[in-house]
Parts: sequence; C-alpha cells; structure tokens
Amino acid sequence: MAVLPVDGGRYGSAEMLGIFGEQRRIDYQLEVEGAAAAAQAEIGVIPGEAGADILRASRSGGVTAARIRRLEARSAHDTAALVEALSEKCAPGSRPWVHYGLTSNDLVDTSNSLQMRDALALVRSGCIRLASALADKASRYARLPAAGRTHGQHASVMPFGLKFANWAAEMVAHVERLDGVRRRALVCKTLGVVGTGSMMGAAAPRVQRLVAARLGLRPAEIATQVVPRERYAEYVFHLALAGATLEKIAVEVRNLQRTEIGEVAEAFARGQMGSSAVPVKRNPIKSERVTSMSRLLRAQISVAMENVPLWHERDLSNSANERFVLPTAPILLDDMLRSMVLVVEGLRVDEARIRANLDATGGQIFAEFVLEAMVRKGIHRMEAYRHVQRVAFAAGGRGEGEYLRALKADPAVSSALDAGELERAFDPGLHLGAAPSMISAVCRSVRRAEAAAAKGAARARG
Amino acid sequence: MAVLPVDGGRYGSAEMLGIFGEQRRIDYQLEVEGAAAAAQAEIGVIPGEAGADILRASRSGGVTAARIRRLEARSAHDTAALVEALSEKCAPGSRPWVHYGLTSNDLVDTSNSLQMRDALALVRSGCIRLASALADKASRYARLPAAGRTHGQHASVMPFGLKFANWAAEMVAHVERLDGVRRRALVCKTLGVVGTGSMMGAAAPRVQRLVAARLGLRPAEIATQVVPRERYAEYVFHLALAGATLEKIAVEVRNLQRTEIGEVAEAFARGQMGSSAVPVKRNPIKSERVTSMSRLLRAQISVAMENVPLWHERDLSNSANERFVLPTAPILLDDMLRSMVLVVEGLRVDEARIRANLDATGGQIFAEFVLEAMVRKGIHRMEAYRHVQRVAFAAGGRGEGEYLRALKADPAVSSALDAGELERAFDPGLHLGAAPSMISAVCRSVRRAEAAAAKGAARARG
Amino acid sequence: MAVLPVDGGRYGSAEMLGIFGEQRRIDYQLEVEGAAAAAQAEIGVIPGEAGADILRASRSGGVTAARIRRLEARSAHDTAALVEALSEKCAPGSRPWVHYGLTSNDLVDTSNSLQMRDALALVRSGCIRLASALADKASRYARLPAAGRTHGQHASVMPFGLKFANWAAEMVAHVERLDGVRRRALVCKTLGVVGTGSMMGAAAPRVQRLVAARLGLRPAEIATQVVPRERYAEYVFHLALAGATLEKIAVEVRNLQRTEIGEVAEAFARGQMGSSAVPVKRNPIKSERVTSMSRLLRAQISVAMENVPLWHERDLSNSANERFVLPTAPILLDDMLRSMVLVVEGLRVDEARIRANLDATGGQIFAEFVLEAMVRKGIHRMEAYRHVQRVAFAAGGRGEGEYLRALKADPAVSSALDAGELERAFDPGLHLGAAPSMISAVCRSVRRAEAAAAKGAARARG
Amino acid sequence: MAVLPVDGGRYGSAEMLGIFGEQRRIDYQLEVEGAAAAAQAEIGVIPGEAGADILRASRSGGVTAARIRRLEARSAHDTAALVEALSEKCAPGSRPWVHYGLTSNDLVDTSNSLQMRDALALVRSGCIRLASALADKASRYARLPAAGRTHGQHASVMPFGLKFANWAAEMVAHVERLDGVRRRALVCKTLGVVGTGSMMGAAAPRVQRLVAARLGLRPAEIATQVVPRERYAEYVFHLALAGATLEKIAVEVRNLQRTEIGEVAEAFARGQMGSSAVPVKRNPIKSERVTSMSRLLRAQISVAMENVPLWHERDLSNSANERFVLPTAPILLDDMLRSMVLVVEGLRVDEARIRANLDATGGQIFAEFVLEAMVRKGIHRMEAYRHVQRVAFAAGGRGEGEYLRALKADPAVSSALDAGELERAFDPGLHLGAAPSMISAVCRSVRRAEAAAAKGAARARG
Repeated sequence: MAVLPVDGGRYGSAEMLGIFGEQRRIDYQLEVEGAAAAAQAEIGVIPGEAGADILRASRSGGVTAARIRRLEARSAHDTAALVEALSEKCAPGSRPWVHYGLTSNDLVDTSNSLQMRDALALVRSGCIRLASALADKASRYARLPAAGRTHGQHASVMPFGLKFANWAAEMVAHVERLDGVRRRALVCKTLGVVGTGSMMGAAAPRVQRLVAARLGLRPAEIATQVVPRERYAEYVFHLALAGATLEKIAVEVRNLQRTEIGEVAEAFARGQMGSSAVPVKRNPIKSERVTSMSRLLRAQISVAMENVPLWHERDLSNSANERFVLPTAPILLDDMLRSMVLVVEGLRVDEARIRANLDATGGQIFAEFVLEAMVRKGIHRMEAYRHVQRVAFAAGGRGEGEYLRALKADPAVSSALDAGELERAFDPGLHLGAAPSMISAVCRSVRRAEAAAAKGAARARG
Repeated sequence: MAVLPVDGGRYGSAEMLGIFGEQRRIDYQLEVEGAAAAAQAEIGVIPGEAGADILRASRSGGVTAARIRRLEARSAHDTAALVEALSEKCAPGSRPWVHYGLTSNDLVDTSNSLQMRDALALVRSGCIRLASALADKASRYARLPAAGRTHGQHASVMPFGLKFANWAAEMVAHVERLDGVRRRALVCKTLGVVGTGSMMGAAAPRVQRLVAARLGLRPAEIATQVVPRERYAEYVFHLALAGATLEKIAVEVRNLQRTEIGEVAEAFARGQMGSSAVPVKRNPIKSERVTSMSRLLRAQISVAMENVPLWHERDLSNSANERFVLPTAPILLDDMLRSMVLVVEGLRVDEARIRANLDATGGQIFAEFVLEAMVRKGIHRMEAYRHVQRVAFAAGGRGEGEYLRALKADPAVSSALDAGELERAFDPGLHLGAAPSMISAVCRSVRRAEAAAAKGAARARG
Repeated sequence: MAVLPVDGGRYGSAEMLGIFGEQRRIDYQLEVEGAAAAAQAEIGVIPGEAGADILRASRSGGVTAARIRRLEARSAHDTAALVEALSEKCAPGSRPWVHYGLTSNDLVDTSNSLQMRDALALVRSGCIRLASALADKASRYARLPAAGRTHGQHASVMPFGLKFANWAAEMVAHVERLDGVRRRALVCKTLGVVGTGSMMGAAAPRVQRLVAARLGLRPAEIATQVVPRERYAEYVFHLALAGATLEKIAVEVRNLQRTEIGEVAEAFARGQMGSSAVPVKRNPIKSERVTSMSRLLRAQISVAMENVPLWHERDLSNSANERFVLPTAPILLDDMLRSMVLVVEGLRVDEARIRANLDATGGQIFAEFVLEAMVRKGIHRMEAYRHVQRVAFAAGGRGEGEYLRALKADPAVSSALDAGELERAFDPGLHLGAAPSMISAVCRSVRRAEAAAAKGAARARG
Repeated sequence: MAVLPVDGGRYGSAEMLGIFGEQRRIDYQLEVEGAAAAAQAEIGVIPGEAGADILRASRSGGVTAARIRRLEARSAHDTAALVEALSEKCAPGSRPWVHYGLTSNDLVDTSNSLQMRDALALVRSGCIRLASALADKASRYARLPAAGRTHGQHASVMPFGLKFANWAAEMVAHVERLDGVRRRALVCKTLGVVGTGSMMGAAAPRVQRLVAARLGLRPAEIATQVVPRERYAEYVFHLALAGATLEKIAVEVRNLQRTEIGEVAEAFARGQMGSSAVPVKRNPIKSERVTSMSRLLRAQISVAMENVPLWHERDLSNSANERFVLPTAPILLDDMLRSMVLVVEGLRVDEARIRANLDATGGQIFAEFVLEAMVRKGIHRMEAYRHVQRVAFAAGGRGEGEYLRALKADPAVSSALDAGELERAFDPGLHLGAAPSMISAVCRSVRRAEAAAAKGAARARG
C-alpha cells in the first residue's frame, strides 16, 4: 500500500510514471552500457566480439530489477549489482569488458539524461497542447469586453480573451526555455571516476561522442565524476517556472469562479460532489490542485540548487535527494499540464455575467476614459484627475449608470465634455485598444509552435 | 514498481511507513468518526444507540481501503466515500448519524493530528537515542586533546568529546522543541464546515473536548474549516531543524573521515563496496545520505509556509501537497535519525591520528597559548600578537616541533617567556579549559531526558 | 543615496531600525566587553582595576564607529578593530585585559543575542497589539451573520467576527512561540576560540554565567566557537511564521475588499491616490505590501537553515548572509505588524454589504441546514443530500429567495419539512452555532496576554 | 548609519551599486518617459512639440530625487510624484502629454528592464573575466598530477588543472544562459493599465516598438498591467545559478586550503589578521564569504517565484519585495564574481604539497590502474577487484610506497602482473587520460567567448 500519492496512483500520468519505474530505469542504464560497449568496440578500445555480445545482452531483457535487487542486498551498491547482473548474461570472454572504463555515475548521470530527454518531450508537448487550448479561448473572446482588475479592484476594460493570450504567449516562451535546457542538460558522460577517461586514454572523448550519438544526447565537454549539477538545477527550475505559469492560470480561474464573480467555472462532472456538507457548491478543485502542486514543485528548486557545490570531484550528497526530485518535478508538471488542458478546454465562460460585472462600479471603471477625453480637451492631467476622482467619490458607486449621470451633472466636467463625448467614454467596445490585434499575433505564434512540434514529431516517427 | 524511493523500499523505517499506509490512514479517520459519534451520544446530540453502533462499526475492521477506492471512483471525493463505506457497516437507524455535524476536514485534520502524534513519538525517541549515543562518545573522549578547526584551519586545542557534547545538547533542545510543537499541533477539530459547529449548536465545544480526550489530542480553541496551517508549518520546520543538526553531524563525520584527516570512519560492512572503480575507499555514505536528505527535508518548509494563507475559511490549495509533505518530512527525519544512531554508535575513532594531526602545523596551533602567556607577563595584546605572528610566518610550519624551537630562539619572545613556560604552552592537556566539566553537565542532562522518556514510555504502556 | 529600501527609509520603524544601526551594534559589543571584564574581575580572572577601567571605557561613548572603520581599513578584521579602539580608551595597565580570553564570535554572537532580545521585545508587543485590535473586531462582529467561504465559494453562515477571532488566537500562539524562542536563542557565549574557555580554565563557565546575568541572557550550556545556528534558524522561522499569519489576514482583507465582494476596505487617506490611470480605485495597498513582505521574510528561513551545518568548530559561511538576514527578518515583521495594526484598527466593515452577500446564491448557502433538518427527520444523509442538490442544481441560483421557493415546491423535500421548518433553515441568526462563545473565549485569552504583557512591561520599567 | 551591509558599504561594487541608486532609478524612468513622448510624437499620437519638450525636460537633469520625495510625501504614490515633477519642468502646453497613455508600471517595469540590462552587462563581463582566470590556471596545471577525490576520499589521479577547466566551462555556459535571459527579460512595456494600450488605440504596439528601439529593449509581445514575473524569476534564478557555480569553486578552495590538505591558499595581504585569538591562521575568507552570499542569493529565487501568480491583471504583492530582490541579486553576484576573480588570479598553488598528497594513501590511489591492468590480462573484473581490495585492506595504507610493495608480494597479483607493469600502474603521469586535451578544448572555447565579448564591447563603444 503506497505511502506517497505518486505510487498510490493519485497523481502522475501513466506515460510519465513509466519513465521512472524501476525496470525502466534499469533499461536506460543497460542502454548506456550497451552503447558504451558498442562504441568502444567500434574504435578498438575493447574487442569487437565483446562489444557485440554486451550490446546484445543489454538488450536481451534478461537483466531484471529482481535480480539486481538481490545482488544489491549483498554489495549495498546498486550500480555494481547492475554490472554484475549484466555480466551474468554475457559470454565469459566478454565479461572483463562490461562497464569498461566507466564509473557508476557514468551510468547514473547518462541514464538521468535519457529520462530527462523523455520527460522533456512529454512536458514540451503538454505545453504546446495547453498553449493551443489557451489560444482557442483567446481568439474566441478576443472582442468580449470585460472588467480588467488590478489590486482586486476593477481597473479598466479589456477583452476577456486577453487573459488567455497572455498565458498562451508565456507557454510558448516556456517551450523556448525548455529547448535551451535540452541543449545543456541532456549530457552523455562516460569519462570515468574523475572525468579523465583514463582507462580509454586519448580515445575517451571519441568514445563518448559515439555513445552520445547513439543515445541522442550531447557529449560532456568536460566533467568531474559527474555531470555538473548546474544542469539539473536549470532543468528543475524551468519545470517549476512552467508550473508557476500554470499556477497563475489556476489562481485566475479560482478567482473568476468565486461566488461573487462567477465569470468562469471548471467543468463539473455529474455525480461529482462538492463537499460533504454543502451539496450545491461547484469548487474549482482542479485549479486548486494545480496551485497546491506548484508549491511543491517549486520547492524542488532549492534542493537542486544545494546540490551544485559538491565537494571535489563529487560527493554523494546529491544522490538520495535526486531520487525524489528528478522524478517528482516532471511528474508534477506533467500532471498539472494535463489538468490545466482539461480546465481550459472545458472552461464554462459566463458571458452574461462578464457583461454584468462590468457595471459593478456603477460605471466608475470608465473613469479613465473620461479623464482621457478631458486631457484631450487640453485640461491638465492632474486637474482632470482630481475632477474625475471628486465626482466618483461623491457618487459612491454601486448603482447602474450612476457615475455617468453624476458626470453629466457636474459643471466642471460637463463644461469640458458634452453628453455624446461622455457616453462614448462609457462604451466598452471602444476601449479594447490594440488588444485584439495583439491577441491575433499571439495566436499565430502558438500555431507556428504547434506546426513545428507536429513536424518534429512526424520526423521522430520516421 | 515504485517510482519514489519511499514506496520503493529504499528509505523509511517500517514503523514510520506504517503510520502513513493507506489502510492505516483510513483507520485513523474511522477512529475519529467513532470517537465523534460516541461523544455526541454521550451528551445527547445523537441517539445513544446510534453512537454505540457507529463506534462499533468504526472498529470492526470492515471498512476497507479497497471499498473506499471503489466508492471514490464514483464520487471523486475521498471523505464522502469513507463516510458511505462506514455507513454500509452500520444499522440503518444509525446511518443518519454517521459523520453528524462534521465536515471532511474534521476527519482529515484530526487524523493528521493522530499521524503527527505517532510520528512525533517515534522521532522523539530517535532524538533521545541519538543524544544518548552522542553522550557516550562525549564522555569517552572528554579528555582526548584534538585539533579544533575554524575556517577549515587548525585553530586551537579542545577535547575530541566536545564535538559530541555539542550535538548531544542540541538533540536535547530538539526534544524540548518537539514538545512545544506537540502542544500546538496535535489539534482535534470537529467544528464543521466553517468552524461554528453549527449542527451541534452550543454543544459543539463540549463534543470536541470529549473527542479530543478520547484521541489524546487537544481540542481546537477556535477554527475555520481547518486547523490553522501555522501549526503544520511549525511541525514541519521543527522536523527539518532536527534534520539540520543531523546534517551538521554528518558533515563533520564526512570531513573528519577525509583521506587527509582520518580521525573517524563510519563502520564499514564486509562485502560492502566503495566504488565500482576504486576498491579501497571507505566512503562515509550514511553521512552523505543524511546530508542529502536534509536538503530535501528542509525544502518541505517552504511548501508548509505557503499553505498558511489559505483563502477565507479555507481553500484546497494545501491539500495535494500535504499528501506529500506530511508523510515525507517525518519519514526522512526518522530515517536520518536511525542512520545517525548507527553512524555514531559504530564510529571508529582513530586516536593516534587525532594526536598526530595536532602536530600538523608544526606546533602553531599552540600560538594562542604563547600569546596568552606573554599577555599575562604584561605585554600588550597587540604587540604580543605581532611577535607570535611574525615568528609563525617566518617558521612556515609543517615540521614537527618547529614553531616551539623558533619561539625559543626569538629574542623578543624568549625575553618574555622562559623555556619551561613555552613548553607548558605546548602541552595540549593543559588547554582543555572547562570543556570536560561542561561535557559532563551535558551528559547528565541527556541522562535526565532519557530517564524521563523511559518513565513516559512505561506510563504509556500502562 | 540608498540602494535597499530599508536604508532608503521606505520600510522599517525607527525603533526597530535603531537596534541595527552601526553605532548601536558597536555599543552592544562594548556592553559585552564591559560585562566580560567586570565578571572576570569579580572572580579574579583579571585584576579588579582593569575590570573597572574597561567597563568604564566601554560605557564612555568614546569608542566610535568612525574610529573602528578606520582601524578596520588597516586590519580587515572588524572585531580586532573594535578591541583596539576600546583599548585606546583604557589605561595602559588595563589594555592586556581587554577582550581577555574571548574570541571575535563571543562578541558577535552575544551582541546578536542582545539585538534579538530587543527585537523580540518589539515584535512581541506588536503581536499583542495586533491580537488586541483583532479581538476588538471579533467581539464587535461576534453575532453578525456573514457568508463563510471555502474554495472561494459560499459554504455556510458564520459570524463575521469569527475571522478575527481565529487570527487573534493565532497571534496569542505566536506570543507563546516567541517566548519559547527567547528561552533558546538569547544565548550569552564567552567561551573563546573553540568553546573550551581555555584562557579562563575552570572559571570559564562561572564568568559566562555572570556575564549572562549582567546582560539578561542565558549562558551557553556548551558551544563551539559559535552559538549553534539552530537557534538562529528557529528565531528567523518563528518571525516568518508570525509573518505568514499576517499574510493570511492581509490576503483575506484583499479578498474581502474586491470590487465584487466589498465587505471591508482599508482606511483610505484623503489625497492618497489609487493609480496614475484610474482615480476612483481604493486599493488595499497595505495588505498587498504585507503579502509582499511575507514572501521576502520567509525566504530568510532557507538561509538560516543552510547556516546550521557549519564545518568543525565553525566556518565563516554564516557571516556575510547573517548581516542581511538577522536585521531583515525582524525589521520586516515589525513593519508588517505595524501595518496590520493600522489596517485592522482602521478597517471599514460594510455590514450592509455583508448581509447582501449572504443572498448571493439565491439562498443556497442555507442548503446545509435544509439537509440537516431532513436528516433530523430520519432521512438518510445521502438521500437527503441528493434531494437538496437536485433542487439546487435545478434552481440555478442567483435570484433572491429563489432556492427557498424551489424547496417549498419540491414534493420530496416538502413532504419532509413544512414551510416553517424550511424558513428556520434560512434564518442566518440561528446558524452561528458555538461561534459566539468561542469568540468570547478567545477574546478573554487575548486580554489575559495583554494584561500579562503590561505587567511585564511595568516590571521592566522598575 | 546603514542597517544593511549594501548601503553600509560593506558589499557591492561601486559600478553595480550605481545602477540602483535613487537618482539613477529616477533617471531610468525619465528615460522611459522621454522615449515614450518622442515615439508618440513621431507617429502623431501626441503633438510633435510636446514630444520634443518632454524629451528635453526628461534629460534636463532638473527632475530630482529630492523633489520627487517631497511630492510623494503628499500623494503616497511614487510614480505620480515623478510624473508631476517632470511636468513641472515642461512647458504648460506639453503637460497634458506627459505620461500619456501610460500607467505606473509601464515606467516601473521598463526601467527595471533598463537596470537589468546594465546589471546583466556587468555580470556577463564578470563571468568572462572569471572564465579567463580559470582557463589560465587550467592550462598552467593541465599536466600536474593530483589526487582526485570523491566522497572526500582519494579516488584517482587527475591533472590539477582539470578542476579549473570544469569551472571555466560552466562559466561559459552561464554566459550562454544569461544571453537567453536577456532575450526574454529585457522587455519594454508601454501598454497602459491592463495591457490594451487603449489610450493609443491601434497605434499602441507601434509606439511600444519605437520606445523599445530607443531603449535597446524588446517590445512586449503582450502584457497585463505588468511584464510577466516569469521573466524576473528566470533572471533571478540564472543569477543565483551562476552564484552556485562560484560557491562550488569557493567550497573547493576552502577544502583544498584546509590545514591537512594545503594544496592552495587564498592570497593573504600583509597586515591582514586571521583571528583575534590565533595569529598564524590563513583563512580562506573570500571563499567563505562567497559561500555565504550564495545562500542569500539563491534564497531570492523563491520570492521571485511566488511573485509569478499575481491576481488578475496584476496585484501589488510583487512590489515591496522586488525593491529588495531586484537589486540584491545582481549586487551579490557581481560582488561574488569580483571576489572569485581575485581568489583565482591570486591563488597560491602548492605543487609540492599536491605531489605529496598523492602519496597519502600509501599508493592505494593507483589501485584502479592495477585492477585495470589485471582486467587487460583477462582476469574477470570482479575477481581482480577482490584481489586488489584484499591486498589494500591488508596493507592498511599510510606509509609511502607500501601498497606497491604489498602487491608485488602478493602471489595472485604478481602472477598476473610483473614488476614493470605494476610500476607503470603507479606512475601518475600515465593516468591523465584525455584530460589535457579536453582542458585545451575548454580553454579555446573560453578564448572565443572572450574575443566575442571584446568585439561586442568595441562595437558598443562605437
């Protein structure tokens, strides 16, 4: 029975969890052992037959987690156990060449890179799916006037779709960031105990280049015993940063779904219950969960940062915590991405309520445009500001149309602006500014990213 | 196959993991339901028979994780599923009274308190065991002169046991801190949806007091829907703080075990391997693991802190991450405590090496006492300081006895101190100051804490 | 011109900033030097005249920051500069006894304790002032029915004052926590380079006890070169935890002040401007600032935690960052406390709006009580739940009184409950449960804490 | 007298502090106002004369911090005060057009970008200077055999220069990362209250492009009221990540400078004092300070991360803490970079000690090569491993040459390897592997980065 909710099946998609299962981790390490042996054979560091035999054994499916666990119980050393288990499946003549010139961390770090590669691919495609769902909503509501809020207060008019476009643009930025991470973090390192590749001598970098090419990774330019943990910190940070954007969306959904605001609601499955005490509530639980996970996700950053200054050519102080952090970070982000895609795609947008909320201040949300019209008539901004504020404070502001009436009745204001001018200031459709065109531009950039990803995926399939 | 190393069996003691297993969590919640029904019956909020029946059903063992999972699949609400599963085991007439006046979080938070209570008991006894092991070493080495180091440099002479005594004293301080946490965090809360206890009216606080007494918890003085998350943050912090002390010990072991220092070594099991490439190394892997876990443990604090400002009477943003943080924090600390007890109890202390290291500076570690002797002769501290420094810089300092010879030969110094006075300055046993007596005092306070804990445990057993 | 907003005068009360000014820090250190000399003279470790002279010089006001800065420029060592500056003000015969047997960190850490002592006193009294302001509001609104919200959704009825009572209770808990911190953190340490007190031999602990008594601190039970940084981490954490409660209050004010909710508003000074573009907004800027500062405040915890595992008898890696963290944490909390006292005392509570908001769901907020009434009539909770939910979902819920009408018209419901019973379910004043009495209890405990603090202050004044 | 050590003059270079001074911050904001007015005039949004006049006034030097502080005291709004102060310096006819269509945050965020631009330039050049100093040391010691250490234990032979090459390579990676940050973080945003640019209508994006071009920034693709705080979090993170690499170097210097290791020492100024109690110590205080600052620097990340999910079109909860975080992060990193350049350039490398330390295990550090030689003779790795380990454990290992003698005497080993073969295994110069060539490659890439930066700087100068 599971203790943590990842292994308990509560969180984590099957695809992402698959990358971090015990056998899969071993398979990644066997892939490295096989690739190393093949590369070493290719340039004559080890005998050609041994290389072929080790490669075969590494792919045979015969090296199991169960066997390794048994061997590890004896040696208290997991890599040694894997090497021994692999050797058992090789011909006796090949055995001296298994793991040749490598150190444990060549396996651990290079297989970490393979997991990161696959995790990044899932996360990247989740980002694009979410960007796409956001762009759909952005275009759909590109001209729907809504209250823009700052400090929790109505601040100005804006198209409702602008919210989605902002998030979509940031998701595209995340894709760019993750591609930067991929360039630096997916390192193949086969340079042995202290990074000299001493067993392979001058051939070490060539071997490493060949292994990297086989694995779709980048060869380490240089190394200690391990890949620099800066790379891991960068990886974890950028996952958490994408998570923070999802949290931003989630917090907005939660706020807009408040009883008193009601502009959106998460889709609500029939039969789903809101609370054990109050039946009628429709709680934004997916968005609340994303918020919750984001806190946990970003907490992983500090662990990854503290792992950077390892002692000398390495110490082990990164090891135990990476067993948690490296799976947890992408599992959380992937789960959050999937949740947010569901939230955004299924989001119920209540256009009537959005329109009604625009009137919540009795029209004071349009004050800015009155101010503006007065400035255009040559009145000093500070003076206009004080008139507009004075009338507003006097009007109080909850009754419909109240502020417009008060402005019309105010001598200072009405001497500057006639009724038609004042009424135009109160027409929300006239105040969307450049937002619709900027929304379109963002949507186009999302479509380009989608198309590029689809092309990449097609190429990957062959 | 497990993804995270807790469920994978790599980390976590069986005792501590037991507290967080799925069925155990359900059993804690059933304990709350049973206690609530019994208490409500006791003061007539619900019928006496219903109370007895629900209490019986809650203890029957018939409410299983499997059944609840099935019901949750339908309702997407875990507490509702538990309530339904419990109701199924009650007589029809009792069913309306199951979970009466309670809200989901009454169960969740009160059962969290039960888990914390049991986790704290384990952790507390681990702290005392470690304090005891440290006190043993402290007394054993209370008069063994060793190099004290600041900035990584030899700084002065001290008894080797002083290190252990410092740690022992801090472990006793942790016990005191954890007792403070216990007073505030082990809250029983049965006040319903928004903390008014409205269903039970004026009787609500009395019910809560009775439930708390049955569960060995403290009744909430006041609440929203939930126990204030300050209490959880405090709990998590103090676990992490104890972890930081363990990390401090672990870092010291790692440093003292360095090839060039060699004053201690972790016990090394026969058959255990140091590295896949270098056979002879004896790595302080337990201490490295404790260091690693401490980083992960303290990262939980920020999550718990961000959960404090929930919206209004609560929002759900604490929920998902607490499913990770609340088990992870005590599981890590408990594992670290067990490791450190093994490390300290099994620690190999190389007394010869400790003595040899005292000479590493050619005697310059005794400069302070030369300075002191000069000051006592009436020389201005700054002037004496400059002489002592000048001779030291000139001597260079790696040959045995070199500094003493140079001081004897220096006119300024030797005019102030004769040979015997200089030699006494170089006798390490004369410079342990009050440390031995302070070590004894710490050991006595550890023994008192042990005795009190043993008495507490005996009382708890009956 | 200041770079950071503390020295720029933007944040920080004059009282709290005073504790951390340059000259004040020196004065604290001189206080330690003076107390040490006096104590050493008292038990004959140094000559009586020297002790008296050093004490006099330390209090003479003649040791200035300017002089120390000049000396430090030469030696690159701030404590040595202070010792030299103090010696200059002593008679030649006393000079050898200045700083006798002490190390730099005896000064630094003991004067840190003096600063913490004074900072804690300010913070503690701020906590009590805030608890008091909260208790005032709690009693005032102890019977005003308001919407309780969970997940941002209306959840149930509660007295508006319950919010304040929850916060007040937690502020009292913070006072208790800070008193625990005070017991452990306010350490006097005068045990020299590696904690042996070697210069003073067996007398070292007695000297330390006397110094501690003079300074109102507790003698270190045992030490390395420094006071264990666990104590500092605990101090910083508990400041940040109090800050998190303030953030919780601030977030609630921000949420309740939203345009659409409008239940409270921060006091708004005449002439103060909301925004450069929108004149009429009343932004909860104090509460927003408290939220902002809380993030910064809690970020100090991780620094303090990483400082715990110093190497050996100490390394310097805590030093530079403590120059930031130790002033920043209390300065922020004190500023936040003062802001929140202003916010709470000046809070405009709009009772009409609170009453109006209770109707926001067309009455569905009372569903719980309908459910309850049905359960009391013997209907199974799950069945009643489904009826209540079904009618609610059909009614939709924004028109006033709508849900009550729909329930009356529903055959399943109306066969169980008659009109009077239904109407009682919709009377908010009947559903405050035990909240008013719990609020009173909290207020009484606040008053007790206030009275105790006043007594303590009177005692301190003499 | 300053409270925090930045304004106290203890930390921070004059160049970097200059960027964050009060008047400079105002000048940046005036630069934005001027550029906006000029751009608006260019495309006819405001009158041409007004544009020219405002631009002139913004550059006149007449808008002072003192004047703004006075105005802010009245309005409690810093941007409004700046706008008013600027207007005072304009012709009456231009005043309506000052700050036209802009909101406070257009100024704040765009001037933040200008500060970041300048801070990044300083930090980037610091990274390159450090990379260069590291590459110098890397080439110089590219063939000096030294002990490589893992787990604090001697692990294998490596060229001493490999340490520096690893750090140099990471510094080049940081330059690449910072360039990525620059692309995303240096945003120019002039889109008004809620990001619609409503005052300028369809022209808003064109205005923004022109302003961005004038300021050397990138126009916001889209925005709310503010630049997305993901950009700031990314900026702060990458500064902290570079800081973590410096910490890694610093920790290595501290470890290698230990009394018992002594391979390097920070340069030590004459007259500088080590400690008030022990004159002869040479403490690695610069490296300790860098370690300390790194903790504080990375703590800024969590603040920046929590600022991401602002409410709606923005709330103010980022504002107060950014006044700390945005200056603190680059000031710390810049200070750390300058310190590390001094440390690395001035580093005293004790080649004799490095050679001597290679013998510290009595030769066991060469066990790996013995093992290897045996494997090459066809012995199974596990079997060879056990022999090598057995002899090592028996030999014990502190006497010089001891392990080689024991191996020669061991029948199992000597039957596989003759004396010459064994001696070759113990020749350190034969085991540097590919490290020298990899070091050269890294040095070349550092030189390329230097050359590119010099070219960029020359281009920037004209």
